[in-house]
Amino acid sequence: MQEDRQQDALKRLSYIEGHVAGIRKMVEDDKYCVDILRQMYAVRKALEKLEAIILEGHLRTCVPEGIRGNREDAVIQELVQLYNIAGNH
Amino acid sequence: MQEDRQQDALKRLSYIEGHVAGIRKMVEDDKYCVDILRQMYAVRKALEKLEAIILEGHLRTCVPEGIRGNREDAVIQELVQLYNIAGNH
Amino acid sequence: MQEDRQQDALKRLSYIEGHVAGIRKMVEDDKYCVDILRQMYAVRKALEKLEAIILEGHLRTCVPEGIRGNREDAVIQELVQLYNIAGNH
Amino acid sequence: MQEDRQQDALKRLSYIEGHVAGIRKMVEDDKYCVDILRQMYAVRKALEKLEAIILEGHLRTCVPEGIRGNREDAVIQELVQLYNIAGNH
Repeated sequence: MQEDRQQDALKRLSYIEGHVAGIRKMVEDDKYCVDILRQMYAVRKALEKLEAIILEGHLRTCVPEGIRGNREDAVIQELVQLYNIAGNH
Repeated sequence: MQEDRQQDALKRLSYIEGHVAGIRKMVEDDKYCVDILRQMYAVRKALEKLEAIILEGHLRTCVPEGIRGNREDAVIQELVQLYNIAGNH
Repeated sequence: MQEDRQQDALKRLSYIEGHVAGIRKMVEDDKYCVDILRQMYAVRKALEKLEAIILEGHLRTCVPEGIRGNREDAVIQELVQLYNIAGNH
Repeated sequence: MQEDRQQDALKRLSYIEGHVAGIRKMVEDDKYCVDILRQMYAVRKALEKLEAIILEGHLRTCVPEGIRGNREDAVIQELVQLYNIAGNH
């Protein structure tokens, strides 16, 4: 991963870890489910945003390198798989 | 699109059109909302499945052709955009 | 369904039907996959929006009526099922 | 939350926290993006599964209690909001 993208990813992961720890605290303290769910949706959005950032980095670097090199079939196969896993199809 | 993929897509689109017409009939006849929603989820899954099939065709044909040709930047930019639109990020 | 919600749903379904027919035309004319996918995402968003409208109507009318009546278990069971189907869990 | 559902939620949250920490390690060690993305999708699925479990508990306990009590409008309004946040509409 490019240096700046990696730093951004680590910052976002720290935020996500703190957020999940906060949700665990809410469950331990038996907070109202609706408030817990709102926090869970927020952390899921943060996770999806980070997925989009990492995928964009992959598309901009590894994919063209792989296709110009000898990994075309593997790179395309991976993208098809990722899309199927991500989308639950 | 490849011939067989195109035929498959047209068959799936006919099914989706019939399904949507069936849902319109249910709404006109004021059927129970829960039954209407179940049919809507089914048609959405059919649509998502077709998206996956068309994207897979794109990844296997246009993307490697574009990258080996002179369209690398455009092809990658399109993939990033598609992912962002599809995922709502 | 309430009269105005039903009229809104029918208008949205007509739009969706026209949109799907337009996508079929694009596939028949062998248009560029990326343009077809953009139209498919747009129609999927329109479908998801209509699901949200119908679910909101259901939550505001049938659910409280069912729970005050004798259908509490059935109504709750349906909501759990709908969420699981909708979310693919 | 019911005792057993709370215990289940805490166990799942511990798993999610460990999983996110593992992903951070992968990013620090500059692992291949595709492997990182696969782990991220797995943790997202675990999060969505837990959302479904907490929502089911909410639907089975707080919602009928609220509607039989004096919180009907509030309970329904919360469900409409949750669905809109969760679904990104």
